[in-house]
Amino acid sequence: MVYLTRKEHFNAAHKLWCADWSAEKNFEVFGKCANPNWHGHNFDLYVTVAGKPDPQTGLVVDLKELSRLIREHVVEALDHKNLNLDVPFMAGKMPTTEILAMEIWRILEPLVLRPNCRLHKITLYETANNFVEYLGEPV
Amino acid sequence: MVYLTRKEHFNAAHKLWCADWSAEKNFEVFGKCANPNWHGHNFDLYVTVAGKPDPQTGLVVDLKELSRLIREHVVEALDHKNLNLDVPFMAGKMPTTEILAMEIWRILEPLVLRPNCRLHKITLYETANNFVEYLGEPV
Amino acid sequence: MVYLTRKEHFNAAHKLWCADWSAEKNFEVFGKCANPNWHGHNFDLYVTVAGKPDPQTGLVVDLKELSRLIREHVVEALDHKNLNLDVPFMAGKMPTTEILAMEIWRILEPLVLRPNCRLHKITLYETANNFVEYLGEPV
Amino acid sequence: MVYLTRKEHFNAAHKLWCADWSAEKNFEVFGKCANPNWHGHNFDLYVTVAGKPDPQTGLVVDLKELSRLIREHVVEALDHKNLNLDVPFMAGKMPTTEILAMEIWRILEPLVLRPNCRLHKITLYETANNFVEYLGEPV
Amino acid sequence: MVYLTRKEHFNAAHKLWCADWSAEKNFEVFGKCANPNWHGHNFDLYVTVAGKPDPQTGLVVDLKELSRLIREHVVEALDHKNLNLDVPFMAGKMPTTEILAMEIWRILEPLVLRPNCRLHKITLYETANNFVEYLGEPV
Amino acid sequence: MVYLTRKEHFNAAHKLWCADWSAEKNFEVFGKCANPNWHGHNFDLYVTVAGKPDPQTGLVVDLKELSRLIREHVVEALDHKNLNLDVPFMAGKMPTTEILAMEIWRILEPLVLRPNCRLHKITLYETANNFVEYLGEPV
Repeated sequence: MVYLTRKEHFNAAHKLWCADWSAEKNFEVFGKCANPNWHGHNFDLYVTVAGKPDPQTGLVVDLKELSRLIREHVVEALDHKNLNLDVPFMAGKMPTTEILAMEIWRILEPLVLRPNCRLHKITLYETANNFVEYLGEPV
Repeated sequence: MVYLTRKEHFNAAHKLWCADWSAEKNFEVFGKCANPNWHGHNFDLYVTVAGKPDPQTGLVVDLKELSRLIREHVVEALDHKNLNLDVPFMAGKMPTTEILAMEIWRILEPLVLRPNCRLHKITLYETANNFVEYLGEPV
Repeated sequence: MVYLTRKEHFNAAHKLWCADWSAEKNFEVFGKCANPNWHGHNFDLYVTVAGKPDPQTGLVVDLKELSRLIREHVVEALDHKNLNLDVPFMAGKMPTTEILAMEIWRILEPLVLRPNCRLHKITLYETANNFVEYLGEPV
Repeated sequence: MVYLTRKEHFNAAHKLWCADWSAEKNFEVFGKCANPNWHGHNFDLYVTVAGKPDPQTGLVVDLKELSRLIREHVVEALDHKNLNLDVPFMAGKMPTTEILAMEIWRILEPLVLRPNCRLHKITLYETANNFVEYLGEPV
Repeated sequence: MVYLTRKEHFNAAHKLWCADWSAEKNFEVFGKCANPNWHGHNFDLYVTVAGKPDPQTGLVVDLKELSRLIREHVVEALDHKNLNLDVPFMAGKMPTTEILAMEIWRILEPLVLRPNCRLHKITLYETANNFVEYLGEPV
Repeated sequence: MVYLTRKEHFNAAHKLWCADWSAEKNFEVFGKCANPNWHGHNFDLYVTVAGKPDPQTGLVVDLKELSRLIREHVVEALDHKNLNLDVPFMAGKMPTTEILAMEIWRILEPLVLRPNCRLHKITLYETANNFVEYLGEPV
């Protein structure tokens, strides 16, 4: 197996807020991330596929096509959006980096599946100081 | 003169929206940045002072003190905030990187003034692909 | 004045070779950069404009439009190309980072000129370890 | 096991072109990467070894020696070269990042083998936006 | 499982020197790193935990708490210190990146253990060109 | 004029300590940087020259030669050294980034002078969060 990674990015707003809790408890648990008027991030998204290079082209996957799939099915839905309000596949879910990475996996896994390659890992940076990796393992 | 730069950062939400205009015109001018439900960025802020090193310490300015001033007077007001709604010094102003950099200059210029040093430049990155510099020149 | 910078990038091949010289002299002057079969780089291009923010929009320039101009008039001509063979505006010129930055200035200067803003600087990275800046000063 | 990684880099030209195909098909499959006059990249190469630290020195491997091996056997052959024309170990192979990473593994695996350590991974960045990892798994 | 990483950093001095050896042998084995008067680095530390997101918060771990634990128990002891002389948990150990990463694992493993998450990996950059990863495997 | 920059780097130990002061005052002024047993940094050094490209080569300066000059006269003296104890040109001077940048200017200015080019700026990063620029202006 060879692992190939493509980077894309998007900018989005969100807040971490649990509707079942008081404002006090939300600030206690989520700190500044609970700011009612939102805050936001430049997210960096790395999509890694694992596969065998095609014997003729030497490519595991067509990078232009992989980039197009990520942009059409993920970035389009997230870029310059509010993760709590604007994104159908995040509706009713906490917009943490953890949950967002898992949902991106769920969307891309069937789309990148080929006879010679499959989705291997989603890596999502919220800031330069914290990021999440998801490899499709059950949680 | 020696130029000394300190980097700080903050994460914020905003939208570019002119209340005098139709939604149609706002989207035409500001594109995705006009998304009504906001979007956001990881902002990187570089504050540059110009001065003479103190003959005894070899320092133009106490970096701990410079960092404290930036965090107390600028980052505190912006981090995990909404630039349109939450920031007193941005009230009624367009929250573009240009205007934000100029307002940060206005706040920090008197605070960093010392007999041997003065504010030289504000550099503000909105993303890795675009940033603004302001040196206090009249606009 | 406020200075606004947009980053774009392109990948290109080139070699440094002076047709008036012997191969020996070319290798002596240009070292590995004279490899007859070419080598290449990921170039990072930063275009800086200087101007006054529009009183209504708070923008010095429309970043989408600036990006489009750079991509249409510069990146399109250079990306995945050979700087010695494929680029009309480099024909007969040495494809050094210095000359390339100056030619990019020459192309973009009239295109970005607006009543409230003008081209200020071209910054061109050939590698992470060396880059060139050109501000339109006569050489 | 402890994993130790050393970064080196090289700049090279290449094109993706399948001699059995028409020009039309080559451009369809490889896009801009099929430009007949080549293009190029700044490649970043990360070599990871896995091993046990020596009880006396606390080192898994002598980094100076690891760096020397990579530069002598890999970087020397690739830096400022044309991957299609100038590199003996790539002769007759498609110069994709995938194939290049696998060939670098093949060269370095026997060279870095020690009683306490072995090659673990080759990571090869073609651009900041796409990279390949190879861990020696059969393809 | 989801993997979550937090980055912290510290600046420290050290030298690599084996007291049982002659100066000559120390310089032969450790090269410039044996300079008797020390040298130093900006270390970047990435702490990765593996776990299940909490069903209510969507978080694997409270990042503020993870950051606090790393700073209080690791960074405090290392930042602006001499790894050979000032750090109790490094006493009598070779201050290589390998050994330091393993000791940081030993300290953090019990501290980050939660019903839903555990320490997964320590990644320690000594420079941009070399780093170590430790996953708790026996050596 | 065209501005050309070359990056080099070195790792060094230092402490900020004024021998005329009590330990108490040193810690008050210099904070953690006064740690008696030293600390250290990975310094990134950018040397910028300004000049006219040679009409035949298109180069302002031979980058290989510029790199050699910086490494031979500056990096050699600083890399893996103690700035307070090991560096002749820093003897008796405070090893702050400010003073170090000015001394590097003093060394390189005569060495890079050519009929068509001169030293323009020294930029010295002590960490990713603070750096100094010196352009030869009197202090």
